[in-house]
Amino acid sequence: MSTDNGHSEKMWGGRFAETTAASLEAFSASIHYDSRLYHYDIAGSKAHATMLAENGLLTKDEVADIIAGLAGIEADIEAGTFVFRRELEDIHMNIEKALAERIGPAGAKLHAARSRNDQIALDLRLYLRDQCDRLTELLTGLRRAFVAQARTYLGAVMPGYTHLQRAQPVLLSHHLLAYYEMFGRDVARLHDCRRRINLCPLGSAALAGTGLPIDRERVAELLGFAGVTANSMDTAGDRDFAIEFVSCCAMIQLHLSRLAEELVLWAGSEFDFVDLPDRFCTGSSIMPQKKNPDIPELVRGKSGRVIGSLMSLLILVKGLPLTYNRDLQEDKEPVFDAVDTVSASLSIMAELVANLRFKTERLQAATTSGFMTATDLADYLVVKDVPFREAHGIVGRIVAYCVEKKCELETLSLEEMRRFSPVIDKDVFEVLSVNGSVDSRISTGGTSLQRVTEALGAAEQNMGMR
Amino acid sequence: MSTDNGHSEKMWGGRFAETTAASLEAFSASIHYDSRLYHYDIAGSKAHATMLAENGLLTKDEVADIIAGLAGIEADIEAGTFVFRRELEDIHMNIEKALAERIGPAGAKLHAARSRNDQIALDLRLYLRDQCDRLTELLTGLRRAFVAQARTYLGAVMPGYTHLQRAQPVLLSHHLLAYYEMFGRDVARLHDCRRRINLCPLGSAALAGTGLPIDRERVAELLGFAGVTANSMDTAGDRDFAIEFVSCCAMIQLHLSRLAEELVLWAGSEFDFVDLPDRFCTGSSIMPQKKNPDIPELVRGKSGRVIGSLMSLLILVKGLPLTYNRDLQEDKEPVFDAVDTVSASLSIMAELVANLRFKTERLQAATTSGFMTATDLADYLVVKDVPFREAHGIVGRIVAYCVEKKCELETLSLEEMRRFSPVIDKDVFEVLSVNGSVDSRISTGGTSLQRVTEALGAAEQNMGMR
Amino acid sequence: MSTDNGHSEKMWGGRFAETTAASLEAFSASIHYDSRLYHYDIAGSKAHATMLAENGLLTKDEVADIIAGLAGIEADIEAGTFVFRRELEDIHMNIEKALAERIGPAGAKLHAARSRNDQIALDLRLYLRDQCDRLTELLTGLRRAFVAQARTYLGAVMPGYTHLQRAQPVLLSHHLLAYYEMFGRDVARLHDCRRRINLCPLGSAALAGTGLPIDRERVAELLGFAGVTANSMDTAGDRDFAIEFVSCCAMIQLHLSRLAEELVLWAGSEFDFVDLPDRFCTGSSIMPQKKNPDIPELVRGKSGRVIGSLMSLLILVKGLPLTYNRDLQEDKEPVFDAVDTVSASLSIMAELVANLRFKTERLQAATTSGFMTATDLADYLVVKDVPFREAHGIVGRIVAYCVEKKCELETLSLEEMRRFSPVIDKDVFEVLSVNGSVDSRISTGGTSLQRVTEALGAAEQNMGMR
Amino acid sequence: MSTDNGHSEKMWGGRFAETTAASLEAFSASIHYDSRLYHYDIAGSKAHATMLAENGLLTKDEVADIIAGLAGIEADIEAGTFVFRRELEDIHMNIEKALAERIGPAGAKLHAARSRNDQIALDLRLYLRDQCDRLTELLTGLRRAFVAQARTYLGAVMPGYTHLQRAQPVLLSHHLLAYYEMFGRDVARLHDCRRRINLCPLGSAALAGTGLPIDRERVAELLGFAGVTANSMDTAGDRDFAIEFVSCCAMIQLHLSRLAEELVLWAGSEFDFVDLPDRFCTGSSIMPQKKNPDIPELVRGKSGRVIGSLMSLLILVKGLPLTYNRDLQEDKEPVFDAVDTVSASLSIMAELVANLRFKTERLQAATTSGFMTATDLADYLVVKDVPFREAHGIVGRIVAYCVEKKCELETLSLEEMRRFSPVIDKDVFEVLSVNGSVDSRISTGGTSLQRVTEALGAAEQNMGMR
Repeated sequence: MSTDNGHSEKMWGGRFAETTAASLEAFSASIHYDSRLYHYDIAGSKAHATMLAENGLLTKDEVADIIAGLAGIEADIEAGTFVFRRELEDIHMNIEKALAERIGPAGAKLHAARSRNDQIALDLRLYLRDQCDRLTELLTGLRRAFVAQARTYLGAVMPGYTHLQRAQPVLLSHHLLAYYEMFGRDVARLHDCRRRINLCPLGSAALAGTGLPIDRERVAELLGFAGVTANSMDTAGDRDFAIEFVSCCAMIQLHLSRLAEELVLWAGSEFDFVDLPDRFCTGSSIMPQKKNPDIPELVRGKSGRVIGSLMSLLILVKGLPLTYNRDLQEDKEPVFDAVDTVSASLSIMAELVANLRFKTERLQAATTSGFMTATDLADYLVVKDVPFREAHGIVGRIVAYCVEKKCELETLSLEEMRRFSPVIDKDVFEVLSVNGSVDSRISTGGTSLQRVTEALGAAEQNMGMR
Repeated sequence: MSTDNGHSEKMWGGRFAETTAASLEAFSASIHYDSRLYHYDIAGSKAHATMLAENGLLTKDEVADIIAGLAGIEADIEAGTFVFRRELEDIHMNIEKALAERIGPAGAKLHAARSRNDQIALDLRLYLRDQCDRLTELLTGLRRAFVAQARTYLGAVMPGYTHLQRAQPVLLSHHLLAYYEMFGRDVARLHDCRRRINLCPLGSAALAGTGLPIDRERVAELLGFAGVTANSMDTAGDRDFAIEFVSCCAMIQLHLSRLAEELVLWAGSEFDFVDLPDRFCTGSSIMPQKKNPDIPELVRGKSGRVIGSLMSLLILVKGLPLTYNRDLQEDKEPVFDAVDTVSASLSIMAELVANLRFKTERLQAATTSGFMTATDLADYLVVKDVPFREAHGIVGRIVAYCVEKKCELETLSLEEMRRFSPVIDKDVFEVLSVNGSVDSRISTGGTSLQRVTEALGAAEQNMGMR
Repeated sequence: MSTDNGHSEKMWGGRFAETTAASLEAFSASIHYDSRLYHYDIAGSKAHATMLAENGLLTKDEVADIIAGLAGIEADIEAGTFVFRRELEDIHMNIEKALAERIGPAGAKLHAARSRNDQIALDLRLYLRDQCDRLTELLTGLRRAFVAQARTYLGAVMPGYTHLQRAQPVLLSHHLLAYYEMFGRDVARLHDCRRRINLCPLGSAALAGTGLPIDRERVAELLGFAGVTANSMDTAGDRDFAIEFVSCCAMIQLHLSRLAEELVLWAGSEFDFVDLPDRFCTGSSIMPQKKNPDIPELVRGKSGRVIGSLMSLLILVKGLPLTYNRDLQEDKEPVFDAVDTVSASLSIMAELVANLRFKTERLQAATTSGFMTATDLADYLVVKDVPFREAHGIVGRIVAYCVEKKCELETLSLEEMRRFSPVIDKDVFEVLSVNGSVDSRISTGGTSLQRVTEALGAAEQNMGMR
Repeated sequence: MSTDNGHSEKMWGGRFAETTAASLEAFSASIHYDSRLYHYDIAGSKAHATMLAENGLLTKDEVADIIAGLAGIEADIEAGTFVFRRELEDIHMNIEKALAERIGPAGAKLHAARSRNDQIALDLRLYLRDQCDRLTELLTGLRRAFVAQARTYLGAVMPGYTHLQRAQPVLLSHHLLAYYEMFGRDVARLHDCRRRINLCPLGSAALAGTGLPIDRERVAELLGFAGVTANSMDTAGDRDFAIEFVSCCAMIQLHLSRLAEELVLWAGSEFDFVDLPDRFCTGSSIMPQKKNPDIPELVRGKSGRVIGSLMSLLILVKGLPLTYNRDLQEDKEPVFDAVDTVSASLSIMAELVANLRFKTERLQAATTSGFMTATDLADYLVVKDVPFREAHGIVGRIVAYCVEKKCELETLSLEEMRRFSPVIDKDVFEVLSVNGSVDSRISTGGTSLQRVTEALGAAEQNMGMR
């Protein structure tokens, strides 16, 4: 019962006869990654201490000592002078131990009415609440880059694709604003996720709540939570919020992978739609002429990584009985990796998108082949009262005729066209022009200049850009 | 250019010189699974036709014919007399073709201003909107089963576990209500997901919108949507809503896997906490005495299946350029499988939970070993002003003493305990009782009878059970 | 104890007081998918019966009756006249029950010394052994298609890509043979997997082996296995072989997704390298001119599906205690889906590859821009004793000069080049030609005509094509 | 064209007009993780240099300088004095640059006829070849621990489980040897995987091979490879070997998760089958009595992590066109994480298994309830010529009778049993004893002492333990 035995260092060593094996210590310590949470752990402890004092479990002096001690520890960590010790396992025990060494007995009172399970759930929620805000900002940055480019290139036409085959001409700005919308949904999902994160778990104690006179609502208030969780056993084993957060991350990275694929394609000699600035590309160690679209490639590849993190978390939870199981310690690294990957990808893609130089002549030129106004011709027939299905067939046959003749629709004579349908008249030629086609699509959400200008205006307003 | 060639059946065959290969037809047809969406496809077509008529693209007679024709087709499908044809590829073309055969020319006008990509996005959104509601109902059924059992067994104590080791005594009802909370979060997630589903995609046409005079907002209104999607190109390639829905499904099935694990454990001879009714178990083909907890085992196993479906969808979208790519056809089977799996699992687990018979004597007996009131003893010392960390150490040593002496805490004499700390007094014994321990945990969300009774009352009210 | 109660149908119903709930029956039956295994189940039963007879557990007459009865059942299943009954749960019990009804008492003796766990492990191994062979055949078909096309187009040049940017000219045949190699590794993996599949599990009985006088080695011999499994408990819960098989499937489908991506790119207007026959493409319901590369898109999308199946299986096994757990029933659908998906994809891609028409002029033309012989120029300098790293720098600067001057390397004058390095001489121009570049790469595995011709010859021999 | 511009540091900077953006450098550098491969990179460079010299591309002096320089760099890295620079991107360029600085011009010649893609493929293969060997050793260590424990506890009986319900009595040693078999399959898979890893990729150069006079077979020989890869384009983009390796890792960790689950169960109060040494457990920060099975919990949780890594890799490769794409850089971290996780888990589980203390009296006691000899009774009837299915029904009814009477099979009187079947006689009682049951199971792979003793002997021989 002396304090100089090997296990006295462990805050839980009382009942143990043997010293912890070094191999276990190495295997189970989390301090090398959960130290990242120090700020949240300390904020949580300050709030807990304040509440304990308000409820008579600490004296005014004790709470003052604790808060000052914690502030000192935080300053030391930020200055890089704090020494984290693996044998103290995690961030909670490293800080608690340091506090006890710095302020004496009062430090030993801090852990009343809470467990480490409590603490880690709290730290992770505080951390992820901040990350929701940070990712939202980064998403906003990327969306603003799309909006700015859409403004810059307003009016430029390009081929719209389905099945990666040329389909109909569209405005480049319409294409860019599609991404604005897509990443907007990510913001909405993070917003909803944040609401579920933003409940204070502290007070589950081991798993069953506590008999000590605590005030959970007060701690929640001090930490800016919207409320407290409802059932101590559910709370102790709940990682839904982390999984939902990483689901949001996976979706963001998938969206980025779609953008990345397009940039890789567009930067190549075949499409040649865009110029990536040299400073965002790298060369080859062997081929002197190469200029590679590394950023989009890496971003695309990283989608596997974020989905992998989501998988890890989902599998982690499978079949776990209530309440806390040590398996859950494995939640943090996938969460951190997802945060880091998505943050870095969003940030660099925003920079890259803002600096893209589109080759508008190439884009325009690409719209002049591929019969991209065929649907316009069919719609023209519909307006002349040909049933759509019949109109589709007529135009299909005209296209087949062009393929054989190796020409484009707009180069056919009126006479040639009338062989396929007598209702076709001179006015058909404006329908077959690329700009006519684009500007005709005035349905809500369509690609006409009018609609895109409206959508762009709304986006600028929404992003605070006008 | 005759209409009697092999490809005339295809609605898009005009420009094609060769008949579709049978192997392609077999490989690419989706009618064997997307026929499930017939109701939504027909509802969408009715709304589209109504809007077309309102905007002069169909006459009153034509729209009346179309709507009657579609109603007839729906009736035939429901009667099982409709013949789906694989060479017509999908549900959209099967219905459109049947309509044309039934009502003639007007049927051929229906597809104006829309594409199949439009239609499938619409059908899937309508379907998933309904499934959100249906899963919410099934979740509610399961939650009600937990609440009812929590009421039935109110007062029964059992061991609470962390690390699957006995930790502190809790109320069985508290444990059951933990699941009530857990599945409540699933309801909330589905609710948020439903909002993102509930926007009308129709009107993207091929990808760029249309020049025909349509009214997207009107179609949305007719179909009960909250609004329309904003960008035609984004809309055409968007499956976020399906992925988010299946994410919700994966979380539900994971929650079920946790419950399942506990039921498998509790049904075994070692725990022996619960009796599963014979009619929910099966036997062995070789061992005459076996009674196996098949339902929870299958439910647990099916978590892999739903996560697998989520994976399929996430991977599907990786690296797809805008807008529609045929890859996206692969979205439906994972979605359907997730819906079927989660629905069936929720339904049968609700039935099973409602019929569990807990062995309250066994539960009670299990609380009497394992030093489960050790934390109470530490808290007792805290109240007597021993710093928590010191109190924890004292109790740890008392437990070690008991382990060696092979006895429980409450069987120690006061004198023995005082050897470890002089502040311990006679009043310690009520702290060491199981019921005293449970009832002391009065923090919000704690396991005391008072708190659990309140939580149960709130749950009953919320579920409309009182 | 009468035999006319509801549960008498169940082969294990003796100890049960309640009839099985209909909901359980619906939830837990596997007959709707495991009926696919009928042939293997019957083969296994015949071998088991033969062995039982050889060891005195059946008479000669009994075994003759059993084998005839089983043959009759198999014939009926193949004729489509056998009625599978869900209340009999699975293929094993459906067949055993039918046998008992057809041949009376002897049928009831068949299940001695085996369990259904035994049977399903056997059936699945027999099935997957066959599937290894079938996939190997399909892979061989696809590889032959590549080899045939490599022969057809031998000599055609095209750009080789890294980072999807033009890098160095290569032979089209070299590119095609890369896939021949890639799919060759899949054959090798299946071969290794088959060895682990090919052990007979029958004889684990429930989990512990049996006391009845059986001969496992004899059953293995009758069924063509290479041996028997070693430990009954391990065997009863082992699904490694199924997971490994589906891992092989996932890799195959990933390889197909790479090929699919290239075909989608090459079929588009921008690359325009290949013509996909009409009969392997479909059109658009709205755009009359479209011809879409549906097969490669679907194949690419299906990679998500096969990986999803692999996920399902991996997750299924997580945390399962020994030996059999009912969760394992969920193994079959992912296995079947993986088999079906990969088989269909391999088959149709072989057909498609065999029918590709490459546009050799387009391929050739694409090699003339992009400074694709820059590495050749650097190597030229190396041979003239310029250190490689310095040579790389010189050529990089020449390329930068060309980019600015908007010209290609081979259009520079000797004088211009010599400004960058005096060692450059007239002989440089043959180095800068596309054919010169290709033919210079004579290292093992390189793209020179000589090497590719050798590789092609070896492949033809290996595939039995010469 | 001066060498003092910003981009001169990059080995590929010749053609670039702008300096690399810092954000790209941070995003794309891999040196912080691929520095782990230094040993393999240097070994590869030595072999490459040796071959270059043998083929006249380096002089004797140059190769001597290079090899000495590389040895010095390796020594510095191992001494911790080598400074890795992020702006040099990766391990290859860090070493090449350092070499150039140390030995001058000769260093600049080393990269002739190879690319970084070549190098990383080589490094990863060399690394993984070693890891196959290391994991095989660790698996052997774990298997030996099982064998040693099986020897120690030979003769001890315990319940065998199916569905986690008591099924039939087995020998503890039989259960332990099931894991010996399971992990043996992992060794076999790694062995096969290693064969596919063990081919030398060097010599693909950029993607097409090289015109410089190299000898790939010689490099392969110097590095101990079994041969060279066959097609330069396939080789440059191939990561099959890494995926297959991580598949093997995932299976190992899944096997460990099954063992972990059993240890968690067995360590709890309900099973109480085993004592985990204190030094492999940790306590609770709040509950003084807790002793938690942290190692198995963490190991179980880590199965999610390894499967997540496998997912990352599989997704990475989806849809990548030939040959190298920068996405592939993302292969290393999942590989390294899988190696680290599986190595650490195997190592600590071997230590833990070796130190388990089984509670043989508890194990024995657990076999005496649950009608675990019911199958023996049915087999007894079969030997007396009752058809098995009928025998199963009779015993089922006897069990139902016992359940109602709350007794065990062996406590029934002969008369009671004969009411169910007149063929039952006095000799039935030896069949109903636990040891009789165990020892009767003499089929190959069965649990009888005889069979298990043989299996144990074979295992000891195989593991070199006798």
